[in-house]
Amino acid sequence: MANSQYGYVKSFETPDRLLPNTWIVIRLDGRGFHKFTARHGFEKPNDKRALDLMNACAEAVVTDLPDVIFAYGVSDEYSFVLKRECELFERRESKLVTTIVSHFTAHYIYLWPQYFPSTTLTMPLPTFDGRAVLYPSTENLRDYLSWRQVDAHINNLYNTTFWMLILRGGRTEKEAERELQGTVSGDKNEILFSQFGINYNNEPEIFKKGSCIYREYETSPPTVDAVEPSNDVPEPLPKSAATKKAILARKSAIAPKAAPKELSKSQLARQRKREMKAKVVVRYVDIIKDEFWEQRTWILGN
Amino acid sequence: MANSQYGYVKSFETPDRLLPNTWIVIRLDGRGFHKFTARHGFEKPNDKRALDLMNACAEAVVTDLPDVIFAYGVSDEYSFVLKRECELFERRESKLVTTIVSHFTAHYIYLWPQYFPSTTLTMPLPTFDGRAVLYPSTENLRDYLSWRQVDAHINNLYNTTFWMLILRGGRTEKEAERELQGTVSGDKNEILFSQFGINYNNEPEIFKKGSCIYREYETSPPTVDAVEPSNDVPEPLPKSAATKKAILARKSAIAPKAAPKELSKSQLARQRKREMKAKVVVRYVDIIKDEFWEQRTWILGN
Amino acid sequence: MANSQYGYVKSFETPDRLLPNTWIVIRLDGRGFHKFTARHGFEKPNDKRALDLMNACAEAVVTDLPDVIFAYGVSDEYSFVLKRECELFERRESKLVTTIVSHFTAHYIYLWPQYFPSTTLTMPLPTFDGRAVLYPSTENLRDYLSWRQVDAHINNLYNTTFWMLILRGGRTEKEAERELQGTVSGDKNEILFSQFGINYNNEPEIFKKGSCIYREYETSPPTVDAVEPSNDVPEPLPKSAATKKAILARKSAIAPKAAPKELSKSQLARQRKREMKAKVVVRYVDIIKDEFWEQRTWILGN
Amino acid sequence: MANSQYGYVKSFETPDRLLPNTWIVIRLDGRGFHKFTARHGFEKPNDKRALDLMNACAEAVVTDLPDVIFAYGVSDEYSFVLKRECELFERRESKLVTTIVSHFTAHYIYLWPQYFPSTTLTMPLPTFDGRAVLYPSTENLRDYLSWRQVDAHINNLYNTTFWMLILRGGRTEKEAERELQGTVSGDKNEILFSQFGINYNNEPEIFKKGSCIYREYETSPPTVDAVEPSNDVPEPLPKSAATKKAILARKSAIAPKAAPKELSKSQLARQRKREMKAKVVVRYVDIIKDEFWEQRTWILGN
Repeated sequence: MANSQYGYVKSFETPDRLLPNTWIVIRLDGRGFHKFTARHGFEKPNDKRALDLMNACAEAVVTDLPDVIFAYGVSDEYSFVLKRECELFERRESKLVTTIVSHFTAHYIYLWPQYFPSTTLTMPLPTFDGRAVLYPSTENLRDYLSWRQVDAHINNLYNTTFWMLILRGGRTEKEAERELQGTVSGDKNEILFSQFGINYNNEPEIFKKGSCIYREYETSPPTVDAVEPSNDVPEPLPKSAATKKAILARKSAIAPKAAPKELSKSQLARQRKREMKAKVVVRYVDIIKDEFWEQRTWILGN
Repeated sequence: MANSQYGYVKSFETPDRLLPNTWIVIRLDGRGFHKFTARHGFEKPNDKRALDLMNACAEAVVTDLPDVIFAYGVSDEYSFVLKRECELFERRESKLVTTIVSHFTAHYIYLWPQYFPSTTLTMPLPTFDGRAVLYPSTENLRDYLSWRQVDAHINNLYNTTFWMLILRGGRTEKEAERELQGTVSGDKNEILFSQFGINYNNEPEIFKKGSCIYREYETSPPTVDAVEPSNDVPEPLPKSAATKKAILARKSAIAPKAAPKELSKSQLARQRKREMKAKVVVRYVDIIKDEFWEQRTWILGN
Repeated sequence: MANSQYGYVKSFETPDRLLPNTWIVIRLDGRGFHKFTARHGFEKPNDKRALDLMNACAEAVVTDLPDVIFAYGVSDEYSFVLKRECELFERRESKLVTTIVSHFTAHYIYLWPQYFPSTTLTMPLPTFDGRAVLYPSTENLRDYLSWRQVDAHINNLYNTTFWMLILRGGRTEKEAERELQGTVSGDKNEILFSQFGINYNNEPEIFKKGSCIYREYETSPPTVDAVEPSNDVPEPLPKSAATKKAILARKSAIAPKAAPKELSKSQLARQRKREMKAKVVVRYVDIIKDEFWEQRTWILGN
Repeated sequence: MANSQYGYVKSFETPDRLLPNTWIVIRLDGRGFHKFTARHGFEKPNDKRALDLMNACAEAVVTDLPDVIFAYGVSDEYSFVLKRECELFERRESKLVTTIVSHFTAHYIYLWPQYFPSTTLTMPLPTFDGRAVLYPSTENLRDYLSWRQVDAHINNLYNTTFWMLILRGGRTEKEAERELQGTVSGDKNEILFSQFGINYNNEPEIFKKGSCIYREYETSPPTVDAVEPSNDVPEPLPKSAATKKAILARKSAIAPKAAPKELSKSQLARQRKREMKAKVVVRYVDIIKDEFWEQRTWILGN
């Protein structure tokens, strides 16, 4: 940027580096999606095409930004988890949040015709807002993801019952709302079963659980990891060492004399091999219980 | 959001309301546009289609978000100025920045075929990052905009000369770079004129000045405003009163007892009439000198 | 600080530079002063010795930190206004706030015996907390100060009546509280006059108005300033120029090549002369109306 | 605070709650202590009275603010560690930092005559600035404390040698400085021993290690804790549970319906008993190695 008598205005920018060694969660939400989905004839309570489109956009984010180690989506929201040691854009909050929002939005518009071949996208266009939240401990992060999945479950059970009452039960929206007021999960399950013959448990997993996106490793089944770590599975450095390394790496960019030890050639080769075998996958699974995480220790570390 | 044992994670979110009564500037930048423009065959040094596309996206932002009272764009960057009294999203930084970035990106992808009918958009898709900066005084804001326009001029003069040396002068990029090292504006003007017969002053204004987007009022020429304010021109409240009103308005949302005085019916009618006549325009003009602003006092106030 | 394998922890510090070109207000409040004043036998509703002690501490702050251009105190709180162009500690919030709090506290303890010669200071010691608030416009700043002075008036009228009811009217605290519930200013004035023969207007100004501390200039009466600026009165640069100069000055510390123009010898001499004649004064005056400020334009500028 | 047309200025205050579930370190530094110590005749390189005074002030902070679980001091600086779950002042940064700075300063002035009975304290008074830093993991916190202790060691070895060269070696400050340039620890040890017969290892621990302040428990030697936890030693909740409880506690203040489970009477009794036996102690010990922390697991938890 040109130097001039006006250049002083640059000093009004405030640094926004996020606290190091914390999990960064960036959550996106569709803006005005109530109207948008109505205008574009989304199916109720869930439109599989729309969820698949959301997932395709999120997959693009996870694939293109390796620091995003996990993503969880439901309805018109998506949460992206960046690894603790993330130094992408020097952890600058605005850069991180806007890059992910822009990436996601671009794919949403671009991929639309693929997922809605017979529905033309019209103005006002779908857009997303986003924000970053920091979680200092892995437990806090797990609780965040559990929070979103519990929320997804509660909302989906409600919406499923609500829309059955309308679409097949002939209620108006007002009536359905009133009918569900004060009901608990058991009541809704009962309504679905007794009035519409629907066993909620048999609903598609993508509706009940939401979508999880992460890197899976082909050749080495994760359950084996714990027993006998092969060369092909990720061998994360002990977390603390990794953190320090990341920070040192950043610092070394400034003061290059104190350069951290580089990976050996064979280490690099192994890492490259590993990454080649990694595959970004979309799964509709429980992430509240420990099982999922214990079987994929490479995602959050121990 | 569902209430559960995990709901405590919400308390990790930090408020990010921007300081009231300051100009908010949100600047977007294309990410990796060097490669992107090369891959999509952008003309050098300036591609009129690309600038028109940028302007169309920015126009959509200005049109859809009335709090954006001015926008200035050049190359792959765009700055949006939100009015001092802006209370959109309660001035939450993340909301404001991501909404504008998402809005802009969505239109870029969506409108692409209109501006590049014969060039298919391919992955990786164009994206934008963004950030907010606050300017406490109107003078600081004016200096910010001047800074960008001076920058635009310097870069465009450089790029124009650089690409002439290559495209018509047969130099390699390296050679052109070396040839321009240490030159001042006069030197570049001279190269353009003596070697390529180009008078830089005759270059298109959109290249030399960048693009300004704002609301213009049809029936009442701004120069008359000062002399005899008609009912159709905006009559901004004295700035300070406006500020307090905005703040009171926000507060009254919380404590509705202290509701601010409402506009009278005739005032509302006048305002509606005004807004109907307002038209978002794109102009390639000097915004460093006072003239532009003195003739359009409704943009920044006095 | 020593360089070691642990030095990386320094990168967890976050910058806290306050937005440039805004008025910085730092407000201090006594912690637990209700108990503290009771334990040390402060007179009710106002203890002149205590206010004088507060003022002595604030005077020390204003005297020792030239960037503090105004201070306003009432009861156990004090607000310090730093000039817009302030670059003390590079505007780092923590540094500014803690320095002023520490300075104030140190003097409070140190000067105590001077103001309470017959009362020994006992543990727990009096302490103060503080915080910074930014005001972008001079009007906002003036409104802040008006807010505090209105508050002072309302509280003092209440407290004066409350304590008269107790000390001379024989009520208990509960009774006095109940008696004042729902009363407006007129009612309290009436109670004071009819029951205790007190004309509130005749109460000491320091109780009714609070205390203002600022620099006064001896030889050149401020009212003359506007008409004929003599060499001895401050001639502040136009605000905008001053701001830019401050910012340039800061920048030039980093890149000393671009040093701003220095003051000439005679200018320096005049400035020194001026500062010698400046005297930090304590006044109990109205700062809500324009008069005070119009007569002392050197405080806030125009 | 009184409600008035000016009350809107309150909306310019920005919230500054620190990220939950992180260690808060608040570090104080003496301002201008170089001059201050010279003026008051501090002994060189270390003045035991001054260190004892610093420790007495820090002890007051630790004693009066139970959320401060550890403090480390050296020279004119002191670091206070607040527990992860700290909800004091709702974790508001300014409140926390200024309260500790003010508390420390007040005691410094108040206790001065006790530690320097024959030296009158003169203006300008000693003051301290301070700032908060967050550490997300216990390892980061340990590294912070190690960083300060390594720093203390390096500085003290340097200062000891420097002042011996001057006080007993007859060098000027300039000469001593030049003589030490480029020397490593071994060199300084050698100078001390060969020129002045000083074995650095025999220097007082308080000079070499700095001072640690924390709660010690009398009846139950910490080494036994691990083996057989008695009722009298602290039984910290598993960290995560404690964190959630703290957050729930805070929330319950707002929405009191969801009140957390209260401690039973016997639990309360036990806790009170524990706290009575806890004693704030000052020790000059190594806090870099694990031993100190393993023997006092109640300080940082596991």
